Amino acid sequence: MPILATPFHADESLDTESLGRLVRFVAGLGVDGVTVLGVLGESNRLSDANREAAIRAAVAAAGKTPVIVGVSHPGTQATIDLAKMAGSLGASAVMVAPSAEGVPNDERVFEYFRRVGAGSPVPIVAQDHPASTAVHMGVPLLARIAREIPSVMGIKLEAVPTPPKLRAVRTAMGDRPLRITTGLGALYGLFDLEAGSDGFNTGFAFPEVLQAMVAAARDGDWARARALYTRFLPLIVFEQQPGVAVRKEILRRRGLLSDATVRHPGAGLPAGYAEQLTTLIESILPGVDLRVPLAGL
Amino acid sequence: MPILATPFHADESLDTESLGRLVRFVAGLGVDGVTVLGVLGESNRLSDANREAAIRAAVAAAGKTPVIVGVSHPGTQATIDLAKMAGSLGASAVMVAPSAEGVPNDERVFEYFRRVGAGSPVPIVAQDHPASTAVHMGVPLLARIAREIPSVMGIKLEAVPTPPKLRAVRTAMGDRPLRITTGLGALYGLFDLEAGSDGFNTGFAFPEVLQAMVAAARDGDWARARALYTRFLPLIVFEQQPGVAVRKEILRRRGLLSDATVRHPGAGLPAGYAEQLTTLIESILPGVDLRVPLAGL
Amino acid sequence: MPILATPFHADESLDTESLGRLVRFVAGLGVDGVTVLGVLGESNRLSDANREAAIRAAVAAAGKTPVIVGVSHPGTQATIDLAKMAGSLGASAVMVAPSAEGVPNDERVFEYFRRVGAGSPVPIVAQDHPASTAVHMGVPLLARIAREIPSVMGIKLEAVPTPPKLRAVRTAMGDRPLRITTGLGALYGLFDLEAGSDGFNTGFAFPEVLQAMVAAARDGDWARARALYTRFLPLIVFEQQPGVAVRKEILRRRGLLSDATVRHPGAGLPAGYAEQLTTLIESILPGVDLRVPLAGL
Amino acid sequence: MPILATPFHADESLDTESLGRLVRFVAGLGVDGVTVLGVLGESNRLSDANREAAIRAAVAAAGKTPVIVGVSHPGTQATIDLAKMAGSLGASAVMVAPSAEGVPNDERVFEYFRRVGAGSPVPIVAQDHPASTAVHMGVPLLARIAREIPSVMGIKLEAVPTPPKLRAVRTAMGDRPLRITTGLGALYGLFDLEAGSDGFNTGFAFPEVLQAMVAAARDGDWARARALYTRFLPLIVFEQQPGVAVRKEILRRRGLLSDATVRHPGAGLPAGYAEQLTTLIESILPGVDLRVPLAGL
Repeated sequence: MPILATPFHADESLDTESLGRLVRFVAGLGVDGVTVLGVLGESNRLSDANREAAIRAAVAAAGKTPVIVGVSHPGTQATIDLAKMAGSLGASAVMVAPSAEGVPNDERVFEYFRRVGAGSPVPIVAQDHPASTAVHMGVPLLARIAREIPSVMGIKLEAVPTPPKLRAVRTAMGDRPLRITTGLGALYGLFDLEAGSDGFNTGFAFPEVLQAMVAAARDGDWARARALYTRFLPLIVFEQQPGVAVRKEILRRRGLLSDATVRHPGAGLPAGYAEQLTTLIESILPGVDLRVPLAGL
Repeated sequence: MPILATPFHADESLDTESLGRLVRFVAGLGVDGVTVLGVLGESNRLSDANREAAIRAAVAAAGKTPVIVGVSHPGTQATIDLAKMAGSLGASAVMVAPSAEGVPNDERVFEYFRRVGAGSPVPIVAQDHPASTAVHMGVPLLARIAREIPSVMGIKLEAVPTPPKLRAVRTAMGDRPLRITTGLGALYGLFDLEAGSDGFNTGFAFPEVLQAMVAAARDGDWARARALYTRFLPLIVFEQQPGVAVRKEILRRRGLLSDATVRHPGAGLPAGYAEQLTTLIESILPGVDLRVPLAGL
Repeated sequence: MPILATPFHADESLDTESLGRLVRFVAGLGVDGVTVLGVLGESNRLSDANREAAIRAAVAAAGKTPVIVGVSHPGTQATIDLAKMAGSLGASAVMVAPSAEGVPNDERVFEYFRRVGAGSPVPIVAQDHPASTAVHMGVPLLARIAREIPSVMGIKLEAVPTPPKLRAVRTAMGDRPLRITTGLGALYGLFDLEAGSDGFNTGFAFPEVLQAMVAAARDGDWARARALYTRFLPLIVFEQQPGVAVRKEILRRRGLLSDATVRHPGAGLPAGYAEQLTTLIESILPGVDLRVPLAGL
Repeated sequence: MPILATPFHADESLDTESLGRLVRFVAGLGVDGVTVLGVLGESNRLSDANREAAIRAAVAAAGKTPVIVGVSHPGTQATIDLAKMAGSLGASAVMVAPSAEGVPNDERVFEYFRRVGAGSPVPIVAQDHPASTAVHMGVPLLARIAREIPSVMGIKLEAVPTPPKLRAVRTAMGDRPLRITTGLGALYGLFDLEAGSDGFNTGFAFPEVLQAMVAAARDGDWARARALYTRFLPLIVFEQQPGVAVRKEILRRRGLLSDATVRHPGAGLPAGYAEQLTTLIESILPGVDLRVPLAGL
């Protein structure tokens, strides 16, 4: 379930045409779903009108592939409003992360998910990403959310170190075995799979690589999973540096985005990165046409 | 220029009737302007549709009193979109604070204000409130914003300690002497006035007290300013505790809000506070009818 | 139990003579104990050798008055080492606050207190001060620390808002009714006493005022407690601004410190504060000799 | 210049014997220097007496290899005290990072380095590591430190993204071309070298790999540098997860530490990691004896 960047034109206006192209490309890979308006989808830089237009474009392009929409908002009621909008526009699920309050309070985080779960017309994926939310959800809290809120259909675990937390949450959920995915640009992808991750829910610009890793892990072919991870890890590391500019530049080179623009105040591509990226991609994928799905992984 | 709470019904829906009442009450005090959708107006818990409804209600009720609208947003373009909406609905100005990026960067904060200043149809008040933004704007940055962005008409200074920063910004602005106001619930009100503050831009539930303090300071009657501050300081301190629940409860007791509800995940009135508040108000304002403007200050 | 500033000479070397004078003055007020090397005692800017010299000087000057020593340290074993040093030098108790780890973890915070409780030769005061520690201890965790660690003799509660937390901790401690004190420069002093605080453990430069407030509260004379609070609150507010420079300047004016120097990188007295302080003290204590304990409170 | 872990016995007491073994092993690799008591040397969990013992042991074992000692401390004077201790015990240099104050202030950070530079008897390496210090030093500040403080002999750059910052600092330093090294467990090692890094100053448990990468880069043999990076990157990624437990476990397996104990409240090796580590090392270094320096890199 790749997380998609939100494309903008050079003037920072929403580029729904590129978004449609990106959705079609990824859906064409045969993924389980596509996620739009996540953290690295720059969702927090969008107006509600932007969000609506992006959801419309994504749903229209996705065909039968489910569309998951990030709807996290500092206000609980506003999160529900966004979930309703997403549902009414054809989203299959929403992804939700809590907001930090001055005083951390597990009860209030649980209540956030409970209310959103009750108010959302579609199932929710609970996201645990303290790097962006500053909310640290312990294993008991995550397990309680999983057990007691029926509309929570999965957990996206992005709290480092992920492997031990993944094992602990899996055990604590007990008789409600939800799907647990991991993200963080697949930085710890091999180790997450070893720890029992069900797959990736992240934005690496070559989702077909992650698909192949998951397939290898499911086949028990760890040598192949490891080889894929090792081969692409330099690119994963380079891409997951702070900001979304590198990822957008790769997607541009893949012919999916017309422009790699990041909305202000997000940072653009740092000086020197275009060259480093060219060298890096050429070393990993020599002579390969990036505009078509990678073959033979 | 009092900052107004955003009233909600018990079910957390927007209460535009109470908002209108609140605006009329405050405008009736003869203030220089009213500010809606600030940080303690729970603006970050509102959908864009909620914001629009609140602005409409405030402008309709304000009559000739200028309405300032908080439009801060993590995205620069979205801030401009909100400023345009506010302007088109009749706001006289907007209040803007920057958002924290992973790496603090003065240039990007300046660029945020520059773009918003260029894109907003109405003047802007630049807000310096690190407690909510996590952005620390130094004196040179604030002075540069003041000097180089023509649509910035004032600064709201809320970075503790405020008195020395106020003096330093005043000096650094040089030949563009903007209005500098302070906030923080007037906690440091007397000291801010001594340091040259032009007045208050904050949400203390008895704005007439702050009006009287400013008037006394302008008259050079510091004994009176100090007496007012000392008399009401226990209430100022009690009210500025984290969250907006105490303030809303006082406004409810003043007959301005139908309900003191705070939107989730904001905290409601803590246990024991209703009683402490009753005792406190009775000790400071014995037998006074809170529903009318305080007289004889 | 006042918390004492750590005096330095103008060259930032430790001024044990002033420290002795300060301890004798405060002990002479008949307080229950004096605390040295707290957060505002700049303890984190001291070498272990400085700490040892400061403890020696304080114990020597305190006579029969118990000396409590702040020994918080990011390492658990190092905290124990400091507690042993304090105990061997004659301290009666130690004050301990936890350090933030990357991932908040109640179990690890409890274990910190458990180990320190087991290793310290003297009783401990558990400090809850998220503003300096970035550790948010919930009511259940504090109650567990109180119930299960025998050497914990008291809690210093400084997590805003303090009144409701104080009530909740008191209830949750159940059958082990420890002494709960509050701090924060007495900013919320009246409200803390109303909520059942046992007294102050803070550094306001006029500890005799806080003594008088506690005495009034114990007598049930709330009118007197409120009058004292209201009278001195402007000074309390002015003093509790970030940094310890204002407090040290007042202590200097009281003849207790030879010099108001704050150790780098702490901030010195901001420009304009000396004058504001003179005006403020003169308005509250006109013509009073600050060098002797305030009489007639 | 590898950064060494600080070894502890199972009871958390300092293990100077293991430290000596570790120093001899690394010095035997022919490195330019060894660094002790860095952030991942758990220096903040040590008493000053522990520090002294560790420095003595390291200097005694290092022979002619220079020993660099981390001496960062929240207090400027205490940093100088530690630098003097390190110098008197035979250290060749000290490594220094600033501490966060409530209000970020470039002038105060510069003054910190200026005073330490003036007071330290040995040269200093200025460390830029916001992940642990919460201090964000901009390029102009770093360049000013480099240009104006003669005893600053190098910069350790660990502020992500490192490659563009490294280029910018290099340019800004102008005519005082200090050595700039990078760290972060070598996560971005290839990209840092491409951007002009002079080498590594980090704690990866196979420093001979980083030596080989630097040598390859100096020879212009980027294919070899890339191959080394790609081969070991899964281990680099696994090891640089938060905490130092994984690194200590590898060093234990290399026969260098008697025990992998991390001082409380640091986290121990997470469940499942021993097995993942075994699999990972076996896949990268099949059948290799870890107890001797890796050959044929």
